[in-house]
Amino acid sequence: MTGHPKILNVELGSKSYPIFIGSELLTQKSFITDHIHGQQVMIVSNTTVAPLYLDQVARQLDEYNVEFIILPDGEQYKTLETVNTIFDALLKSKFDRTSTLIALGGGVVGDITGFAAASYQRGINFIQIPTTLLSQVDSSVGGKTGVNHDLGKNMIGAFFQPKAVIIDVNTLDTLNDREFSAGMAEVIKYGLLGNADFLSMIEENIELIMNRDKDLITDVIFRSCEDKAQIVALDEFENGKRALLNLGHTFGHGIENTFGYGVYLHGEAVSIGMHMAAMLSMLEGDLSKEDINRIQNLLSKANLPTTIKKSMDSESLIKAMSLDKKSIDGNIRLVLLKSIGDSLITGSYSKENFNTVVSNFCH
Amino acid sequence: MTGHPKILNVELGSKSYPIFIGSELLTQKSFITDHIHGQQVMIVSNTTVAPLYLDQVARQLDEYNVEFIILPDGEQYKTLETVNTIFDALLKSKFDRTSTLIALGGGVVGDITGFAAASYQRGINFIQIPTTLLSQVDSSVGGKTGVNHDLGKNMIGAFFQPKAVIIDVNTLDTLNDREFSAGMAEVIKYGLLGNADFLSMIEENIELIMNRDKDLITDVIFRSCEDKAQIVALDEFENGKRALLNLGHTFGHGIENTFGYGVYLHGEAVSIGMHMAAMLSMLEGDLSKEDINRIQNLLSKANLPTTIKKSMDSESLIKAMSLDKKSIDGNIRLVLLKSIGDSLITGSYSKENFNTVVSNFCH
Repeated sequence: MTGHPKILNVELGSKSYPIFIGSELLTQKSFITDHIHGQQVMIVSNTTVAPLYLDQVARQLDEYNVEFIILPDGEQYKTLETVNTIFDALLKSKFDRTSTLIALGGGVVGDITGFAAASYQRGINFIQIPTTLLSQVDSSVGGKTGVNHDLGKNMIGAFFQPKAVIIDVNTLDTLNDREFSAGMAEVIKYGLLGNADFLSMIEENIELIMNRDKDLITDVIFRSCEDKAQIVALDEFENGKRALLNLGHTFGHGIENTFGYGVYLHGEAVSIGMHMAAMLSMLEGDLSKEDINRIQNLLSKANLPTTIKKSMDSESLIKAMSLDKKSIDGNIRLVLLKSIGDSLITGSYSKENFNTVVSNFCH
Repeated sequence: MTGHPKILNVELGSKSYPIFIGSELLTQKSFITDHIHGQQVMIVSNTTVAPLYLDQVARQLDEYNVEFIILPDGEQYKTLETVNTIFDALLKSKFDRTSTLIALGGGVVGDITGFAAASYQRGINFIQIPTTLLSQVDSSVGGKTGVNHDLGKNMIGAFFQPKAVIIDVNTLDTLNDREFSAGMAEVIKYGLLGNADFLSMIEENIELIMNRDKDLITDVIFRSCEDKAQIVALDEFENGKRALLNLGHTFGHGIENTFGYGVYLHGEAVSIGMHMAAMLSMLEGDLSKEDINRIQNLLSKANLPTTIKKSMDSESLIKAMSLDKKSIDGNIRLVLLKSIGDSLITGSYSKENFNTVVSNFCH
């Protein structure tokens, strides 16, 4: 399949755009250049990804005025100050409204660059080249861009759609195992929340997928993006159904916030969170013990944690969870499973069952 | 007409919103409260406007959790740092995605607050209460929000529509004469660029308008917003026809940039710029000497300058003009008049005529 990507069109009216998924896409010009309209292009990357792929991308752009900015790597740099350094660079180089920003890197680079593109001169062209599995299956669809604030994650940002997303699965060759597994948490999420067939496909092929078989990975990314695109198309600005994508995330954010940066990767916290949501769904009478085992088994085969390894008390977790953006008047809304492949958003579950789950996972 | 406003609906599909224009609107609850959906409201104002109108507005909101933030007054505070102080306040008060930002003040307060509303949690409710004639006839329509950067004005921002705009013409009672005249430059602009009937109406009533007759002012603001709304509806994201609104602005920005802040008000620079654009239109064979006299006469009756009073050299002005956001590859695109009430955007005018106009105004 080298060079012949799968193409997913994300349908959002005048904001529709294609996602190209396949091998060796970064060695071909047209996937990028077809989506550049002016002459000025700025590539935003970070100190980890730039040494690996910046040359390859820049080589496709020899007909343009190309500049680049290399950010330090890490979530702690996902700030308004960093966005401002991009504005500085754009203005110093006199980039106009026809210029294009390319995000080359993982979710952090994509979120920062997308917000810069949304806000520079009230919006310029934006192309995403996600290089981690997590960003390929998550940030490619949905148009969420933004940065953190000292007082909260992702509190500043915009909904802003890219002109195109180019996913070269070869970039996964340089991704470390732990990051790869973290991406798999989101992949498994799509199966659990709405696509039982996809979940079965992942289960049947989990060893090959974990060995990063190119054809299978291409298919897995395509189906993940397709599932997410269907949900986003129904609810672009996150007023309803889109919240289903938060399966495992409310518990997960609580775990991340309690431990702080660097203990669990986002995907790892989501993996534990999905296990917790599944447990609560079982206590609510919707899942069987076999379902729980099946979920835990798959997450384990993807080398993901399903329990909290470090000591954490219930109160801290619940407090962190109630700060979630989606909680309304302190009531923690959760995504629970009705069955494997079917989910709902609800604030009306037994608080006793909720407390049971939390205290079972905390110690 | 006290309390019974004129209502203009700005038609932008799902982003449509009403503009209420009339006397004593700030003493009535419903104009504001009908457009607040959550419980949390933050009023953003400045040190000049807050002492005059903040109490009046806050009094209508006794059923809500209201906070306010008072910015220093002046264009020099229209920065990303100021927007960040609004984010700080919103997060410290734990304002969620259902909260509402109200901009109470002139264009600077509106631009800053609008961008904060566009970016906080990727977009929250926004209500505008413009208190200067300029912001009432200009910022009420079009959704342009944003801040300045050291290297350029309005370089960072978003297109973001308010839920409602409330124009209480009584707020003009406290506006100084010079600011009132600056607002009139934009009013006259709408007549010149596309509405000869409106221009005649302004000419016939200019003395009463300058005396701030409430009924006439209400009508003038309504017709200005209506004209702008018609153009914006055709071109929300400023890719074409919307540039007609820049009549006088490319020359005007050049004058503002050359002299720096504080010499000319924006409207004053636009007034000179419209005179320059009209002169060039005459040299291009489209306006008569009588037309020029008519335009200059009306601007003078509105107490607006029509010539550059301080010394300025042609080269500086041309250089400043070619930095304009709308210039493409160094070619300065201008809005010129085909006749009074009819305009076009063009880059193909005689450079000799252009230079003649510039050197006639510079000395």
